[in-house]
Amino acid sequence: MVKYEEQLDAIFTALAHPARRAMLAQLGKGEATVGELAQPFDMSLPAITKHLKVLERAKLISRSKNAQWRPCRLEEAPLRTASGWIEEQRKVWESRLDRLEDYLHSMEKNGERKKR
Amino acid sequence: MVKYEEQLDAIFTALAHPARRAMLAQLGKGEATVGELAQPFDMSLPAITKHLKVLERAKLISRSKNAQWRPCRLEEAPLRTASGWIEEQRKVWESRLDRLEDYLHSMEKNGERKKR
Repeated sequence: MVKYEEQLDAIFTALAHPARRAMLAQLGKGEATVGELAQPFDMSLPAITKHLKVLERAKLISRSKNAQWRPCRLEEAPLRTASGWIEEQRKVWESRLDRLEDYLHSMEKNGERKKR
Repeated sequence: MVKYEEQLDAIFTALAHPARRAMLAQLGKGEATVGELAQPFDMSLPAITKHLKVLERAKLISRSKNAQWRPCRLEEAPLRTASGWIEEQRKVWESRLDRLEDYLHSMEKNGERKKR
């Protein structure tokens, strides 16, 4: 449970920066080198490397160990974990709204019965 | 576009802490006062207030202005914005995998044709 919470912390932290989201969006289209990922940004290489480390810590990207140019690739599982958490919340609030609707319907019916 | 990116920054930042996620999960079940939200945590009131401010900044919660006890309530729209962004990425990588599959099938067919 603690590990799951730590994963969510790392994933949402990684998603909380426009440059990191843009890097993930680019990697969604295919593997890319650090140079290719850096290209759209007016950022120093250490800054780029720092963002990549945040993404790696969240396991949102992995880097090939074999190829000399070590391309980065997107890992989908953490994105599924993040949307899974949001989905869980949606289920809770939707079931609450359903219960509220049922309650209002039953109130309405009671009202009609009393009028007769 | 900048506003959308800023919204995503604020939402994902807000989701990147277990206490704030727990508060949102509780609010999914219904409105709650600051005292009720603070109850499960071993935290000072200023610390709780700080977390609530991060959630308010992301518009994930709102606070009633009328009632004296000013209950907090969950606002679903930012959660939909966050999962919408993740969903967009999923579409990109899935269409890439589909294209890759198509390509491999066409290679396979070419191979069979050559064998004949």
